[in-house]
Amino acid sequence: MNQTEGQRMYCLAERLFPICRSITGNGFRSSLEMIREVVPEMQTYEVASGTQVFDWTVPREWNIRGGWIRRTSGETVVDFKDCNLHVLGYSTPVEQQRISREELLAHVYTQPDQPDWIPYVTSYYKERWGFCMTEHQRQAMQDEEYDICIDSTLEDGHLTYGELIIPGETEEEIFFSTYLCHPSMANNELSGPCLMTELARYVDLMESRRYTYRFVIVPETIGSIAYLSRHLKEMQQRVKAGFVLSCVGDDRAYSMVSTKYRDTLADRVLENVLRHHAPDYKRYSFMERASDERQYGSAGADLPVCAFCRSKYHEYPEYHTSADDLSLISAEGLQGAFDVMAKVIRALEKNRHYRMAMPCEPQLGKRGLYPTISQKNTYGDVRLMQHFIAYADGRNDLIGMSDILGKPIDQIIPIVDKLVEHKLLIF
Amino acid sequence: MNQTEGQRMYCLAERLFPICRSITGNGFRSSLEMIREVVPEMQTYEVASGTQVFDWTVPREWNIRGGWIRRTSGETVVDFKDCNLHVLGYSTPVEQQRISREELLAHVYTQPDQPDWIPYVTSYYKERWGFCMTEHQRQAMQDEEYDICIDSTLEDGHLTYGELIIPGETEEEIFFSTYLCHPSMANNELSGPCLMTELARYVDLMESRRYTYRFVIVPETIGSIAYLSRHLKEMQQRVKAGFVLSCVGDDRAYSMVSTKYRDTLADRVLENVLRHHAPDYKRYSFMERASDERQYGSAGADLPVCAFCRSKYHEYPEYHTSADDLSLISAEGLQGAFDVMAKVIRALEKNRHYRMAMPCEPQLGKRGLYPTISQKNTYGDVRLMQHFIAYADGRNDLIGMSDILGKPIDQIIPIVDKLVEHKLLIF
Amino acid sequence: MNQTEGQRMYCLAERLFPICRSITGNGFRSSLEMIREVVPEMQTYEVASGTQVFDWTVPREWNIRGGWIRRTSGETVVDFKDCNLHVLGYSTPVEQQRISREELLAHVYTQPDQPDWIPYVTSYYKERWGFCMTEHQRQAMQDEEYDICIDSTLEDGHLTYGELIIPGETEEEIFFSTYLCHPSMANNELSGPCLMTELARYVDLMESRRYTYRFVIVPETIGSIAYLSRHLKEMQQRVKAGFVLSCVGDDRAYSMVSTKYRDTLADRVLENVLRHHAPDYKRYSFMERASDERQYGSAGADLPVCAFCRSKYHEYPEYHTSADDLSLISAEGLQGAFDVMAKVIRALEKNRHYRMAMPCEPQLGKRGLYPTISQKNTYGDVRLMQHFIAYADGRNDLIGMSDILGKPIDQIIPIVDKLVEHKLLIF
Repeated sequence: MNQTEGQRMYCLAERLFPICRSITGNGFRSSLEMIREVVPEMQTYEVASGTQVFDWTVPREWNIRGGWIRRTSGETVVDFKDCNLHVLGYSTPVEQQRISREELLAHVYTQPDQPDWIPYVTSYYKERWGFCMTEHQRQAMQDEEYDICIDSTLEDGHLTYGELIIPGETEEEIFFSTYLCHPSMANNELSGPCLMTELARYVDLMESRRYTYRFVIVPETIGSIAYLSRHLKEMQQRVKAGFVLSCVGDDRAYSMVSTKYRDTLADRVLENVLRHHAPDYKRYSFMERASDERQYGSAGADLPVCAFCRSKYHEYPEYHTSADDLSLISAEGLQGAFDVMAKVIRALEKNRHYRMAMPCEPQLGKRGLYPTISQKNTYGDVRLMQHFIAYADGRNDLIGMSDILGKPIDQIIPIVDKLVEHKLLIF
Repeated sequence: MNQTEGQRMYCLAERLFPICRSITGNGFRSSLEMIREVVPEMQTYEVASGTQVFDWTVPREWNIRGGWIRRTSGETVVDFKDCNLHVLGYSTPVEQQRISREELLAHVYTQPDQPDWIPYVTSYYKERWGFCMTEHQRQAMQDEEYDICIDSTLEDGHLTYGELIIPGETEEEIFFSTYLCHPSMANNELSGPCLMTELARYVDLMESRRYTYRFVIVPETIGSIAYLSRHLKEMQQRVKAGFVLSCVGDDRAYSMVSTKYRDTLADRVLENVLRHHAPDYKRYSFMERASDERQYGSAGADLPVCAFCRSKYHEYPEYHTSADDLSLISAEGLQGAFDVMAKVIRALEKNRHYRMAMPCEPQLGKRGLYPTISQKNTYGDVRLMQHFIAYADGRNDLIGMSDILGKPIDQIIPIVDKLVEHKLLIF
Repeated sequence: MNQTEGQRMYCLAERLFPICRSITGNGFRSSLEMIREVVPEMQTYEVASGTQVFDWTVPREWNIRGGWIRRTSGETVVDFKDCNLHVLGYSTPVEQQRISREELLAHVYTQPDQPDWIPYVTSYYKERWGFCMTEHQRQAMQDEEYDICIDSTLEDGHLTYGELIIPGETEEEIFFSTYLCHPSMANNELSGPCLMTELARYVDLMESRRYTYRFVIVPETIGSIAYLSRHLKEMQQRVKAGFVLSCVGDDRAYSMVSTKYRDTLADRVLENVLRHHAPDYKRYSFMERASDERQYGSAGADLPVCAFCRSKYHEYPEYHTSADDLSLISAEGLQGAFDVMAKVIRALEKNRHYRMAMPCEPQLGKRGLYPTISQKNTYGDVRLMQHFIAYADGRNDLIGMSDILGKPIDQIIPIVDKLVEHKLLIF
């Protein structure tokens, strides 16, 4: 049975969902292995704890087996087994012990303005232990004492990331990055890696590829910094446009985050595609960045990388809570994101500065491309081809042409193909 | 008796109107001869059928003597003698014959949305025969059979065009182009050539001329392509601004068609003049081009040529129908077009980057150019001169000055003259 | 007792107010001496009558002791002693004499649309004598004859100006200019020099100075022309931004006059500071210039000099009349102007193209500059620092950063200081 891309992505998300991931540890590794079942060419790399990556240091590796709060009667208050958000990300281990309510509450995190949801909280770079729960759960904790335990380890180990390079005719690259370091959340975690698997498959199946494609799956922030510390120079030379894929699984909006000056090829192609695909899409400035486009676009790196989202991180209510579950995303939502990115890829592959082979208009009529009878109001479809011909003077690339002509690139590509076929176009 | 330019133009249009013209043939030739009575220096050139001009081939020459449809009773349905639009332009000959209604109607062209007017229809590059008539005439044709005849020839011959070069102090050129290939229509045909004759006379009578002027009368499209095939390289070197004159005889609007990027001297001067002469003028983008600016501005030619119109082709209801007759144009309408183009010429002739001869403001008072008493609110007219002086720093040409100062060029030229006279201005 | 800058400025204005100044003469000299009591380092220079300064000639020196109109009964109509605006500026002497009403009225100037106020009128470059009075006073003059006398001298002498250079670490200069040639008027005269004294004091007390500061007090127009004739070349090399201080003493508005193309450092910094200090400030184009920015910005000089005003000259009703008196200005009004200019100076001193010392974001957490716990909606103040870091890529100067980030420069400077302290910023 033939599944759509959206259906395949949703199935993968379902399989990945239960795993507890963090910026290091076995949860990230096993999730990446699951992705490599779909994209076996993706390579896995490890960076040792303590490694200096620019201004940062790779932290110790965190792993967790369990954790709970119980009433002294033995009744469970919260348990990692029920939801892995219940233990603070990177929480240090806590041996089983009895603790006063007051002391415990200093280690409890809730989201008071969303009292039914467990917030996602982490403390990567300062050693802390803690529990997360709903505000209602917290308010119900009225006993004098509780028993607690966190069965985690924080030890020297590695940070893990995945990389897939699909070579093209040139060394110039299109770059995709996503992250895999969040525990059980759906839109803000799994949608990005799932979309990346389908894009990798799409690129792999293309008949010809002008660009080389670089796909990267990292833990957010520290992972992109570690990756850049190994690859920045080559990426500055090769990457022509890049996209961070984040929160691409729901169907409430289309969004993008511009680069600093909104002037790169990535901005131009993504704005163009979104303008036609979803005219009411939301464009956020670089001021509203928060994912790995922060690092790729930071001063000194300055890579041409936008972020692409459906409902953008920080902008939808379920963000970074237990409510960001599998019901928030759908095959249709993921499919819409795939469609946009596939259009972006097609547009980039065909994006050249086309130039007509002769001065003056070509005689389209003798090639069957123009009506042979001339009467007013009878030009019809050929008008778009005529406009393309007029502006094919070498000053505009295909994206610029689409902007000038006001038509989607997918509608102009057949014209390009027809003119190339008639040897009327040079590039 | 002294006629205005408008009156002279209208009289010429009246004389030219009855002739049946096409892109080749004796109608074009005799029309051009009539124009040469006014502008005898204009030279006539011929290009043989079959000549390759860029991507196009000069077609065979078409001439027509008559054509009609008659009822079998002998009663006339339509006759070329009554209106030369009745025969399809470039119609192949048809020997007198009887033909079924059904077969005939496949060769009949009407404009159903304008049922009282005969449409202007042509088939230059595919051999066809046909008749044009009003929709009402067509609907009245209920007989079983009709007699028809088209007395035309389509044979090897020539394409004809006219060219007039009026030399100036430099080889830099101002270029005017119009076309003369339409049969009996007034605004969209005769207004352009009539305006060109008066402009040539105006230029010829100027005391001094900085620019060389190139005036060209061609058949539309194939004529400008043929002309460019002979002159493109020199025109790319010399032409600083050019204007296609088309539909310049009515008085309902002023319009222009911009060049591709709206950034040439032609755009700047024509927009400036129109903004002051007719603030509600209509500016059309290059996307709405349809006359020979198509060829002059095509990719690879890229000449700085705008179109200038009163009511633009395609935009007025009578366009390309029998209703575009002498009642549509007037001496006043033509005069308005002449006034605009004369202003354009004056502006271009004076368009320099002026620079003050000294730093700091000159003392205007000692030259009688400034009030010697200083009291608030008493500057008056001298303010415009002061502004001109401030911006005469070599960065702005006269058009730019007018744009900055918000005053018409005709109002700034006397200031330039006065400052030059006082040796305060360098250029 | 510690006075505010505003209070000190107002006191100085009170002392200067009674003196009758003009573009030359002892009134200007003694006013400048009074200013030198506050700024003793300011040097005084004299330019002899008859000196050619660019297109102008320094006029003869004018001094006046008195002047009046009396009824033949001896009753005073107007007297210079009551208000020095009563005698036309630069009036030639008139020996005591009896004169017909009609002859006298040809030498009387009033402001009919403001009938209660004496207008300020001058005739510097054409020899004339005259009186100024209110329109009501004029209408009351119904006698047949009057006695008149003007005790003035117009003789070879000098034009006087003041100049103060406060050296900085570089030869690059910030320039301030004001004028001191008006008789007893407050906003349009004394506010500018008073503000300059406080700015000179402020600059003098700065711990370190990157820029050299040039402060100039001249008679308007002829004075700035004379000054430029001596210093233009060095100013063109050194002056990075300049400001004409004029009408800076009331509290009804904040205004500025842009340079010709609104593209200089002076425009950028003043617009930025005013946008945050007084969002409803008024920006006038160079077309509305009228003080010495005319000369500094004239074609050929092209110095980057804006004018800064509270209620701009020509724009407030009391302008150039006896109603522009000490009640129009205030310590608060002057203080507001000082605050703006002090912000401008601080912004210019810190205005550099900052660049981060490393690619990728620095780890702010380990330096105590970022929260160590990560939960949504908890970034707070650090966001502005993060944005600064992102845009510190060497493309933007501090003013540009402020424009991008939408925050006042005074709020960004502490961030710069903190990042420099942590050696994260290069410039």
